Amino acid sequence: MKSASELVKEHPWIGWILFLGTMGMVFVLGLFAATILGRRNEAIFAYKPATDIRPYEPRNSFWGKYFPREFETYEKTAETNFRSKYNGSEKIDMLAEDPRLVVLWAGYAFSTDYSQGRGHHYAIQDIRETLRTGAPKNEQDGSTPNTCWTCKSPDVARLMSEMTPEEFYKGKWASRGSEIVNSIGCADCHDPASMNLRITRPALSEAFSRQGKDINASTQQEMRSLVCAQCHVEYYFKGEGKYVTFPWDKGITVEAIEDYYDSYQFNDWTHSISKAPMLKAQHPDWEIAQMGIHAQRGVSCADCHMPYIAEGAVKFTNHHIQSPLAMINTSCQVCHRESEEELKRNVYDRQTKVFELRVKAEDHIVRAHFEAKKAWDLGAKPEEMAEILKLIRHAQWRWDWTAAGHGSSFHAPLEMARILGTAIDKAQQARLLLVKLLANYGFNDDVAVPDISTKDKALTAIGVDINSLKRDKQEFLEKLVPKWDEEARKRESSWPQ
Amino acid sequence: MKSASELVKEHPWIGWILFLGTMGMVFVLGLFAATILGRRNEAIFAYKPATDIRPYEPRNSFWGKYFPREFETYEKTAETNFRSKYNGSEKIDMLAEDPRLVVLWAGYAFSTDYSQGRGHHYAIQDIRETLRTGAPKNEQDGSTPNTCWTCKSPDVARLMSEMTPEEFYKGKWASRGSEIVNSIGCADCHDPASMNLRITRPALSEAFSRQGKDINASTQQEMRSLVCAQCHVEYYFKGEGKYVTFPWDKGITVEAIEDYYDSYQFNDWTHSISKAPMLKAQHPDWEIAQMGIHAQRGVSCADCHMPYIAEGAVKFTNHHIQSPLAMINTSCQVCHRESEEELKRNVYDRQTKVFELRVKAEDHIVRAHFEAKKAWDLGAKPEEMAEILKLIRHAQWRWDWTAAGHGSSFHAPLEMARILGTAIDKAQQARLLLVKLLANYGFNDDVAVPDISTKDKALTAIGVDINSLKRDKQEFLEKLVPKWDEEARKRESSWPQ
Repeated sequence: MKSASELVKEHPWIGWILFLGTMGMVFVLGLFAATILGRRNEAIFAYKPATDIRPYEPRNSFWGKYFPREFETYEKTAETNFRSKYNGSEKIDMLAEDPRLVVLWAGYAFSTDYSQGRGHHYAIQDIRETLRTGAPKNEQDGSTPNTCWTCKSPDVARLMSEMTPEEFYKGKWASRGSEIVNSIGCADCHDPASMNLRITRPALSEAFSRQGKDINASTQQEMRSLVCAQCHVEYYFKGEGKYVTFPWDKGITVEAIEDYYDSYQFNDWTHSISKAPMLKAQHPDWEIAQMGIHAQRGVSCADCHMPYIAEGAVKFTNHHIQSPLAMINTSCQVCHRESEEELKRNVYDRQTKVFELRVKAEDHIVRAHFEAKKAWDLGAKPEEMAEILKLIRHAQWRWDWTAAGHGSSFHAPLEMARILGTAIDKAQQARLLLVKLLANYGFNDDVAVPDISTKDKALTAIGVDINSLKRDKQEFLEKLVPKWDEEARKRESSWPQ
Repeated sequence: MKSASELVKEHPWIGWILFLGTMGMVFVLGLFAATILGRRNEAIFAYKPATDIRPYEPRNSFWGKYFPREFETYEKTAETNFRSKYNGSEKIDMLAEDPRLVVLWAGYAFSTDYSQGRGHHYAIQDIRETLRTGAPKNEQDGSTPNTCWTCKSPDVARLMSEMTPEEFYKGKWASRGSEIVNSIGCADCHDPASMNLRITRPALSEAFSRQGKDINASTQQEMRSLVCAQCHVEYYFKGEGKYVTFPWDKGITVEAIEDYYDSYQFNDWTHSISKAPMLKAQHPDWEIAQMGIHAQRGVSCADCHMPYIAEGAVKFTNHHIQSPLAMINTSCQVCHRESEEELKRNVYDRQTKVFELRVKAEDHIVRAHFEAKKAWDLGAKPEEMAEILKLIRHAQWRWDWTAAGHGSSFHAPLEMARILGTAIDKAQQARLLLVKLLANYGFNDDVAVPDISTKDKALTAIGVDINSLKRDKQEFLEKLVPKWDEEARKRESSWPQ
């Protein structure tokens, strides 16, 4: 047998073919290897420059000097816009969209003003403007506590670094108006030394501790949801000190938290029509997400609401936090191969089904409130009303749990439908007992429900003078707020620029 | 510069390295190419031998001579077993598991006997044994029509090839007892000439036609569900001729079919307690599956319930039709990478949530039936009861739609929860009206519900003498059935063996 070199000597083209062929293959393998190595960029994309950002710097623009892309995209939360009928910067008045809400929250500030959440950009503007925070005339006026600032600003993280949470929560909301002026931002979630995610609000860490868990042991992927869970959760203001507390000690299901509040006999307010001891759900987004398949498969909030995007050769996290429906291509389609149209249809399909049950629950609870009022009017005794009011409390709590969150009927559609099924059930149980009680008091007709077909009519039905509230608010915005802003300007002008 | 051949001449090892390296790479590429080409086997796995199978041969064993693997796996439907607490060949008495069913179906044969469906292997045995088909003493006896055989046997396909559907449906069930003896099998779904899937029951094709669709234009993937939809659907026996009809003309949602039945004023029976005009859902598996994400993503019934498996080098369809939970590795895990344990938990999680609402709906509907009876007893007039009875009819219809199917709360969990939410709502609406009506007749207490904590107690409550039914059935099984089998044996012994 001839050696390879003898063969090549006789036929030089064999050598060239072998050589060039090998070169070609090695080139292709190199391309493959490059894309594999390129994946490593995903781990190291977060370029971390040395900065002079102070640990609780509340001005996003200061961080923006070093992280322009993250800052620029975050600024776009001023234009969050995924419902085509609205302009992104417009507030959606949910009381006008569904006047039943006015009745459901009668006696509580939510019945006077409730808009759909806008982008983080508007956190300070919106908390100042909402009628819910009232119209303090000076720093010591009003009934809103300082606790209400907790989720609104990195200034809160700054102040909390200088005092205990108890000290921070103490006092009137107006008393910190000049200190808390920057909308939610970088410092709320990031440590400027490492740019790692960090927890700046104590309630979440404390809830973990009480459950025997260490939040510092969380993985990076878990942190990509937990920084959101600092605020996007169910919480309440505990005790005289209005200490922000997550009611998770018995679990994070709607039943476990209902049980928790019941065991404390905690009420957010007493309903002005039915006199039921009520609970108000906040926005239990994190808890509800845990009940859904995305979280169960390890998908974090940021994966869908802040997906990675590329600008040229740079890959970074899009800080324009918004509905994934506004960016299906960079969000859903990273995993799902279906068309945008199909994916949207899937989401709306879930929302429509849950919404059908939600409206049914609202209708029955509204009626139950008025029927309970009728019973009181006829002389019903507290002991006759106790079970009925508890059923109303639980029905509305469960309804509110599904209605108060953002995107709940997508995050965990089956759990929402299940809960609404039990809300309908409890509201109807209350109404069954009420019909019997009313008959015992000689009343066997339908209880009339006033006209609540518009927000204004509903406000009239519950006896709220909205114009007076608005006038007071306007005065507050024109007189007190400019002072706050001026004080803040002075303070910040003495900081590093 | 030296030529490659000169280099190789000087250093023969260079030539060998280039040569061997190239060989190695080509070998690896060959492996890759082989797996790609191997995929083509998936398209041609269905080896179709020339056979002498007649077009409507009802004996599965005859087909099994040519298709041993499909036949052997199909025979395993005798051991369908996915609920660990039961033996696969055991019947699960659903009336004993949930005695509320006895009350819900009072006045209808389902209240006397309702077992969870077993494997296809038992179709003939089970239809003979169930108390629902009665105990005819001869071929002309009994109240069950021939239509009841329709889904039970390839003998039906054989007989239908010899007569019109009208002729087939005509007459008593007992009159075809000796003709229909082979359990559901090959001929029901396959054309022996090509082994292609085929529709052998007219109701499905007719329902498609009335909707302006041609079932023959269905794709192979659609056929992998449609052959199941010949039977696993909602249907009713229309008119005097008891013609099997699918109520799909207004759509396949629970509301569309409710509307369809209402517009015909069709009742399956009159409830013996409440006198409500009732509907019985069959097993609307195909319709419900269309509401779920698997069907919406193009997954067919067979993909999960009859997954491809391999024996050595042969890939074939596992004809052991059963719950995918019994074969997660060949079914779910073809697409889903999660562990068996995790996937099972996901299924049970959905089922548990839907089940919670289902039981609530049952409780309220049971009470509504007894409360309606009380109203009749007190002298309520038909016009006072009309709306109430309609609400009961609709509530139970919706509940039954979710409860009657196989796997519905996995196939379309959100749709099931939505429907059950409306069932709870309607049952409670009926009860609210009843409480008022009862009060008008001077009754303002709780209506007592008899003890229905066991099947026997529930049967007593609705006045059914189950032992007499069982005695008659035993006589039928001992006297008439052996004659049927003997006649069938004679007939089939004259056929090709």
